[in-house]
Amino acid sequence: MELLNSCEVSRGSSNMKASTSNLSNGFLSLCSPATIGESSPKIVAGDDGYVFEDVPHFLDYIPKATVEVWFFSYTQISANSVLGTVFFTSHYKQIIDLGGYRGFYSRNTIPLTPKVVNNIHKRGGTIIGTSRGGHDTKKIVDCIQDRKINQVYIIGGDGTQKGAAVIFEEIRRRGLKVAVAGIPKTIDNDIPVIDKSFGFDSAVEEAQRAINAAHVEAESTENGIGLVKLMGRYSGFIAMYATLASRDVDCCLIPESPFYLEGKGGLFEYIEKRLKENGHMVIVIAEGAGQELLSGSLKTTDQRDASGNNLLQDVGIWISQKIKDHFSKQKKIGQQKTTINLKYIDPTYMIRAIPSNASDNVYCTLLAQSAVHGAMAGHTGFTVASVNGRHAYIPFHCITEKQNKVVITDRMWARLLSSTHQPSFLSPKILAKQQG
Amino acid sequence: MELLNSCEVSRGSSNMKASTSNLSNGFLSLCSPATIGESSPKIVAGDDGYVFEDVPHFLDYIPKATVEVWFFSYTQISANSVLGTVFFTSHYKQIIDLGGYRGFYSRNTIPLTPKVVNNIHKRGGTIIGTSRGGHDTKKIVDCIQDRKINQVYIIGGDGTQKGAAVIFEEIRRRGLKVAVAGIPKTIDNDIPVIDKSFGFDSAVEEAQRAINAAHVEAESTENGIGLVKLMGRYSGFIAMYATLASRDVDCCLIPESPFYLEGKGGLFEYIEKRLKENGHMVIVIAEGAGQELLSGSLKTTDQRDASGNNLLQDVGIWISQKIKDHFSKQKKIGQQKTTINLKYIDPTYMIRAIPSNASDNVYCTLLAQSAVHGAMAGHTGFTVASVNGRHAYIPFHCITEKQNKVVITDRMWARLLSSTHQPSFLSPKILAKQQG
Amino acid sequence: MELLNSCEVSRGSSNMKASTSNLSNGFLSLCSPATIGESSPKIVAGDDGYVFEDVPHFLDYIPKATVEVWFFSYTQISANSVLGTVFFTSHYKQIIDLGGYRGFYSRNTIPLTPKVVNNIHKRGGTIIGTSRGGHDTKKIVDCIQDRKINQVYIIGGDGTQKGAAVIFEEIRRRGLKVAVAGIPKTIDNDIPVIDKSFGFDSAVEEAQRAINAAHVEAESTENGIGLVKLMGRYSGFIAMYATLASRDVDCCLIPESPFYLEGKGGLFEYIEKRLKENGHMVIVIAEGAGQELLSGSLKTTDQRDASGNNLLQDVGIWISQKIKDHFSKQKKIGQQKTTINLKYIDPTYMIRAIPSNASDNVYCTLLAQSAVHGAMAGHTGFTVASVNGRHAYIPFHCITEKQNKVVITDRMWARLLSSTHQPSFLSPKILAKQQG
Amino acid sequence: MELLNSCEVSRGSSNMKASTSNLSNGFLSLCSPATIGESSPKIVAGDDGYVFEDVPHFLDYIPKATVEVWFFSYTQISANSVLGTVFFTSHYKQIIDLGGYRGFYSRNTIPLTPKVVNNIHKRGGTIIGTSRGGHDTKKIVDCIQDRKINQVYIIGGDGTQKGAAVIFEEIRRRGLKVAVAGIPKTIDNDIPVIDKSFGFDSAVEEAQRAINAAHVEAESTENGIGLVKLMGRYSGFIAMYATLASRDVDCCLIPESPFYLEGKGGLFEYIEKRLKENGHMVIVIAEGAGQELLSGSLKTTDQRDASGNNLLQDVGIWISQKIKDHFSKQKKIGQQKTTINLKYIDPTYMIRAIPSNASDNVYCTLLAQSAVHGAMAGHTGFTVASVNGRHAYIPFHCITEKQNKVVITDRMWARLLSSTHQPSFLSPKILAKQQG
Repeated sequence: MELLNSCEVSRGSSNMKASTSNLSNGFLSLCSPATIGESSPKIVAGDDGYVFEDVPHFLDYIPKATVEVWFFSYTQISANSVLGTVFFTSHYKQIIDLGGYRGFYSRNTIPLTPKVVNNIHKRGGTIIGTSRGGHDTKKIVDCIQDRKINQVYIIGGDGTQKGAAVIFEEIRRRGLKVAVAGIPKTIDNDIPVIDKSFGFDSAVEEAQRAINAAHVEAESTENGIGLVKLMGRYSGFIAMYATLASRDVDCCLIPESPFYLEGKGGLFEYIEKRLKENGHMVIVIAEGAGQELLSGSLKTTDQRDASGNNLLQDVGIWISQKIKDHFSKQKKIGQQKTTINLKYIDPTYMIRAIPSNASDNVYCTLLAQSAVHGAMAGHTGFTVASVNGRHAYIPFHCITEKQNKVVITDRMWARLLSSTHQPSFLSPKILAKQQG
Repeated sequence: MELLNSCEVSRGSSNMKASTSNLSNGFLSLCSPATIGESSPKIVAGDDGYVFEDVPHFLDYIPKATVEVWFFSYTQISANSVLGTVFFTSHYKQIIDLGGYRGFYSRNTIPLTPKVVNNIHKRGGTIIGTSRGGHDTKKIVDCIQDRKINQVYIIGGDGTQKGAAVIFEEIRRRGLKVAVAGIPKTIDNDIPVIDKSFGFDSAVEEAQRAINAAHVEAESTENGIGLVKLMGRYSGFIAMYATLASRDVDCCLIPESPFYLEGKGGLFEYIEKRLKENGHMVIVIAEGAGQELLSGSLKTTDQRDASGNNLLQDVGIWISQKIKDHFSKQKKIGQQKTTINLKYIDPTYMIRAIPSNASDNVYCTLLAQSAVHGAMAGHTGFTVASVNGRHAYIPFHCITEKQNKVVITDRMWARLLSSTHQPSFLSPKILAKQQG
Repeated sequence: MELLNSCEVSRGSSNMKASTSNLSNGFLSLCSPATIGESSPKIVAGDDGYVFEDVPHFLDYIPKATVEVWFFSYTQISANSVLGTVFFTSHYKQIIDLGGYRGFYSRNTIPLTPKVVNNIHKRGGTIIGTSRGGHDTKKIVDCIQDRKINQVYIIGGDGTQKGAAVIFEEIRRRGLKVAVAGIPKTIDNDIPVIDKSFGFDSAVEEAQRAINAAHVEAESTENGIGLVKLMGRYSGFIAMYATLASRDVDCCLIPESPFYLEGKGGLFEYIEKRLKENGHMVIVIAEGAGQELLSGSLKTTDQRDASGNNLLQDVGIWISQKIKDHFSKQKKIGQQKTTINLKYIDPTYMIRAIPSNASDNVYCTLLAQSAVHGAMAGHTGFTVASVNGRHAYIPFHCITEKQNKVVITDRMWARLLSSTHQPSFLSPKILAKQQG
Repeated sequence: MELLNSCEVSRGSSNMKASTSNLSNGFLSLCSPATIGESSPKIVAGDDGYVFEDVPHFLDYIPKATVEVWFFSYTQISANSVLGTVFFTSHYKQIIDLGGYRGFYSRNTIPLTPKVVNNIHKRGGTIIGTSRGGHDTKKIVDCIQDRKINQVYIIGGDGTQKGAAVIFEEIRRRGLKVAVAGIPKTIDNDIPVIDKSFGFDSAVEEAQRAINAAHVEAESTENGIGLVKLMGRYSGFIAMYATLASRDVDCCLIPESPFYLEGKGGLFEYIEKRLKENGHMVIVIAEGAGQELLSGSLKTTDQRDASGNNLLQDVGIWISQKIKDHFSKQKKIGQQKTTINLKYIDPTYMIRAIPSNASDNVYCTLLAQSAVHGAMAGHTGFTVASVNGRHAYIPFHCITEKQNKVVITDRMWARLLSSTHQPSFLSPKILAKQQG
């Protein structure tokens, strides 16, 4: 048995060196044993008595698979030298999907040539189209079968990886000799198990720029508040890392850490305190933060208008209004007036559009090469990623069962709190609820 | 004929060289004769029979002014080496105003030292506060008089320069030996007569980044529309220059060029055409564009709610909604459906926060040195700027009488139209109105 | 009379409006009457008694030229929409020259398509090759004639424009209906008459980055000296503007301002003074500065070795060594020792490789459109540029007769001196020589 | 027993949660048992039978240490809020050393205040001076003792960490209650055991820019060669990662991988091949690469001159000359001539001067917080770092015993080779030597 488990890997680098002659060997397979959809996990006993789950291999369901043939067809389609570059730029290799999953059956393919892919890694965005929403698994696999495609690389986040898993199951069911490999690319970093997803580093870099702008704005006026909304509908990683990177942030609000506005220990009290101490402040809010408050707020004001709703559902606009209301209300009820000057920055699209930075470029190269090596060696149904600093092949279901979230009882969030000095927003009520 | 014409200026650099020993001599005074507030313009006959309007000088109203004394006090207050740097970073020199004009009387001053100003030119924003709204001229001049300030440098845009003019008039009325010099700093470039204001170049540079992001986003989806709102409440300079710089823009809407949405030659028709041709498009809109349409729209939908109003008055949000409505309405009335994918980018605060670029830095150095040299030579009541490529002293009233606007019958706008291929939006009705 | 002179243009925008229907009208023709090579200048009397030199027109030497035909052929070759983009990216339009002038006859052409030129303006460098050295005018014009090319756009600096002038003369001699238009692109800004050349602004921006790095390095060590060599073999514009933009520079050395090392008022004395005062310093040197000293130095040390020579001819390496020698020699003769820490930065290739900035992009758009409009209207033998803030057509010979140089008795250099506080290096001997 | 070993940590996050109330608990102590200088390693048996080496603690040599007192003195000296920022900007905390180690005894200290440290993390370089060369351990510890300093944070690379170890031993020998904590900051990434050092990511980012410039230059001319020298005297990490990030590099030469110039499989052959195939190429060379060749070359040409030596010892200049010589020699001996166009870029100082990027900023925050928490909890003699993705305290000797080097038989280098297609330079002779 060749795959090491995490425990073994961390024991020493000597084991790693021994396996470099066989490039597919050193990768980790990290996953708890669990049953998935139609196929059962591939449980294997390791050398030292360990039991772990391996990634699927053609030979699991096609006993007489001739891998040699497969290698041949591979080199027919794409020159080796293009391969890396293709992946670097977030593309499907053998078939370019021009509209997300639906592109498999609704569009013509664009043959990749060195000319097409040259230099595209220096641009942000993607030359292949993207689409959201459902897709027809049967049609996609029909298309794969008809075109005699034998490797499918699927690049994307949480939803895309789920789609990849479903396609892989259908391919396995039909007994096709098609390798399906996933490459985790999402600025949200919400894929579990893995160290980070491709794109996350670049997003944090640019998010930091937006925070810096907010800080400059806030500093320039009396009682200036710079408010930056960052991506993260279900997880606050970009917000948390950009806050730690920037050091200009006084408060970071994320979906995983509930907060409240009014009263002791609430956001308004903290804003008042910071403005008094420092004359200005910077707030970062992830798009999914405070959804409970926001939906409550919507109910009470009974704003059912379609476009109005849309605007209010933007948590950045919503909380901007709440803060403004609080400080103008303050005036009316006779308290000492604090005239605030709130500037709201939504850098979402500017972040999405930037080219990847050097660190992501290196990561992408490694991911792409891992994926190709894995697929060429006959593995399938896996996502490549770095896990505890080492590159791993991970069965799809391990990363699609749940989402990666900031653990607010972990050290990282504790460090953020000690860096921003913001309140924990853990009122006795909330604390009770959390622990209950 | 009063103004020096460009021909004379361009006649020879020999004249310019001759005057370098006297730094204030070579500057132009460009202004049409006009009476202003309390003082009358200073009409002077030049060497070659020209008659022009000069900038005021202490000796005009303080016959026995001892400029020597004044020089002395100047060097007391600020080391020469600091001076340039102070100006480079957009500051008042002898008095630092911590809240715009109101800072003169409501706050303590911060003495500038080399330590305070060192390196601040590398940051965006301002270490001095800014404030908007009215100020009390009498109180400000009282403060200047009480503190025995003898040079006031006022840095800002249109409104600030108007304030400077009023303060200068009050100083002149009281017969104080105080030089008032303006430095034109506004990213909007809406100060007339001068070539450009400090900050404009940097703003265009960053605006281009936002347009690039919009382009990347638009390209990445089917029927993608990237919509960028740029600054410019009354003038479209940033939008026009960023469009010319970017070359990715399909349509640029500015306050000076009215447009309409529906019907032949309208915006919707053009959007449909571009999406059909190209699959995506980028629209740039200045914040003051389409105000007529927008106020009309507000009336009909009768949305008088304060916060609602605020949101709708953002022309970017308004036009985003209008475009979305158009394409979803299209569906209902049975036309072929085009599902658009509109991304709205508002980079306002990110643009405002960037440090100035090299070109602006050079310009700022020159402006600051001109201002100091002018004030030291006894001139007052002037703004420094580049006019037709040469540095000039301009009496305040010349630049406060009107605002600089894009002339849409000029070559620059013609070039933009030929670069974007957008319609001129000059319907027969509008054309008649314009020419009538 | 079609061309306005500068005087007229500055009179009012009303004239400008009238002429927008005829795009070639508003351009300036600024040049002193002078005889050139084979053709004589085209002296024209203006409306108000002015006499000026006009740019050549086909009708000057082809009496029956049918401009209609020419327009037709123009639209055949290149879609209008591509045209601007082609120019924006510094290319020949109808023929792409893959090796500078020699490309005309030694290579195949690449037909430009929208696909080829799309997005290339976002990259630095050039997709067309460049070559230095001589070319065979006769062969080039033969090639133009054979291929029935009727518009030639030539993009480059001083030497390229001279080549364009020679080609134009040969075309005129043969009576060909071929428009030759020059676009001034050189980061050295050494083309006379015009306001600035395309590329200069971007170069200054990046040069400022290098100076900033030198400053950071110098600040980080005791007696740190950051030395930056910038481009400029015959003119010091990049060095001067980058110095004014950066404000971290203590000494800027350019070809136009001779300097000396030893003795009172010399460079070494100034370095010692600055290190004593400030603990570190930044020196900027243009590559052509101090050539007299350098060649003198080479003679005395008699280093005739080929590769050695090459190294020493780099003024940055040479002066680094001189400064190091001075401070180590100091030690030996018993003076108080100052151990310096010199870091030499040569950012030449990093500056050349950057994409153009927004300001240059706008300028390039305007230059390209001017050139095309001029050529389409039948003008030829001209370079387009901004002159005193207005776009002009300039006969080739006007810009090829001399090089643009920093005038060290002008205000700009005076400002630099007052910004850096460096000595003027005008020893009595040098002063006598300069004035003699 | 409080410290977890790596195996335990990777077992589950449930353990991690339990330990968050005690921040020092979760850190790893990763080190093989080994004897060091004067003190013996602290071998501890873990809960599950593991044996590992712990970091030293005051209580190991000061039985009655009153940690309470120590905490008190800590909070006296520095407000908690400053602490993070101080570290973020690479500073000694309680004492600022103005000249590296020698600053301890040769200079006055600068008290850190929020004002001093605010915003300095946004600048490159360091506000504290740096010095190279030896230091007097006894004097430094005398100074620490005299000033009653009780925490010393030492920030730097390989050499600095060695110095820290020596100082710690002297402190331990004297029985002082002074915590010594190291923070690994070096762009060279040459510290063993740890995942990466602070500064490495930022250096790779900027190195990639230089490579991009080289690529643009190379592409713009026929047979263009862009040659970039990057830092790395003993290890090629920056060169390797920048190459993987850039994808424009055709050959990457590092100290760990010997190469040869002439003959089959040599560099010249490869350059000829690439120029023929592609028309241009980019070479990256680490400053320590090819030292064997270079010293051989120096001997044969017998250039013993001091300054000459210095120039030739720059491997970038040396190899540039070698390549040029090869291609000009080629001509002479009658082969088909290839006129190359080599551009040499040395971005060393520009890389060193850049501010840290977001990823490094986050890392620095975590390192600084770990260091302070460790020192506050009474640990000493350790360096903080990330090890296999988790933050660890590492006894000094573990990271000072050897240097981190690229392992050319590892996967990372294999990936580089497959990305650049460069030869392995493993001639039979070398291979034999390597394996012998």
